[in-house]
Amino acid sequence: MPLTQIALRAGKPAEYRKAIADSTQRALVATFNVPKDDIFMLITEHEADNFVYDNQYLNVQRTDDLVMIQITLNNTRTLEQKKALYKRMVDELHESPGLRREDVLINLVEVLKENWSFGNGIAQYAL
Amino acid sequence: MPLTQIALRAGKPAEYRKAIADSTQRALVATFNVPKDDIFMLITEHEADNFVYDNQYLNVQRTDDLVMIQITLNNTRTLEQKKALYKRMVDELHESPGLRREDVLINLVEVLKENWSFGNGIAQYAL
Amino acid sequence: MPLTQIALRAGKPAEYRKAIADSTQRALVATFNVPKDDIFMLITEHEADNFVYDNQYLNVQRTDDLVMIQITLNNTRTLEQKKALYKRMVDELHESPGLRREDVLINLVEVLKENWSFGNGIAQYAL
Repeated sequence: MPLTQIALRAGKPAEYRKAIADSTQRALVATFNVPKDDIFMLITEHEADNFVYDNQYLNVQRTDDLVMIQITLNNTRTLEQKKALYKRMVDELHESPGLRREDVLINLVEVLKENWSFGNGIAQYAL
Repeated sequence: MPLTQIALRAGKPAEYRKAIADSTQRALVATFNVPKDDIFMLITEHEADNFVYDNQYLNVQRTDDLVMIQITLNNTRTLEQKKALYKRMVDELHESPGLRREDVLINLVEVLKENWSFGNGIAQYAL
Repeated sequence: MPLTQIALRAGKPAEYRKAIADSTQRALVATFNVPKDDIFMLITEHEADNFVYDNQYLNVQRTDDLVMIQITLNNTRTLEQKKALYKRMVDELHESPGLRREDVLINLVEVLKENWSFGNGIAQYAL
């Protein structure tokens, strides 16, 4: 169910971008009970002009390796689960592809279960 | 009002992408009472590396023709209307451009009516 | 905190796109109490085929200079603040880069404060 949008600067190799997707998925599985095969992610690569960020907001030192990850998902997780997700995501992404922990921005957009159809025109989560 | 984001693999001709937009709009008009001229859609085309999906989650067999359609709209529709939208969208998209019904993923993001301005700096839905 | 997605037709110079980002930020600072250095924006440039809009919906005359701006942010603003934001955004964007007021579409997606991590895997707004 999560629909994940990963934005980063253009120019990283395919393996690097795959590692970001894989690490994000591992964190979702570990902390949000997302099924292993519930994977839907869109990656957008941006030129410098089109990737605008502050490099020190909230005293976090960011670099051009920043990834902005917006995850749309069901509104069923607790605050504790969200904190666990954030922690696990930076750990996984630091492990692979080796991102600095400061360079991971995460945003969750929550929706109702009935707001999804995964094919065949059926609301699979609201039968 | 819907702001629709349509993501698919790169390489389809313009007519094919136009058919996806047109069929989506027909379904929104038919089931969600969207005005015919209330059309705002962004299409993003992704290389294989940047378009990540599972090809069998929930026993739906997906192919590279998958389209992921995220629709931001007002929180005023019932569950029955949502089910009707999903059904109608896959029917329309199967008719034109000929998508397999399994290859249509839909996600709704609901917002308040006051969360829109359609030009001139006015909240047209919250006057 | 706002994560702002700015979509426009491809082909505008970098300074023009920067002016859109800067004007949007000025409006957010002025009306939503967003800190000056709280800037995270993604710009996507679309070919005509992939940028679909109606040129007169709600009697607003739009041109190919239309920008569609979707802002994800905390659900803490009043209706009055939202109206002030819309007004200020078109004023700022009209001033620089010189957009017609009709060519500014704005959509707000509201989330909980706990739905953000700005780096280091911490929920900075929900400690």
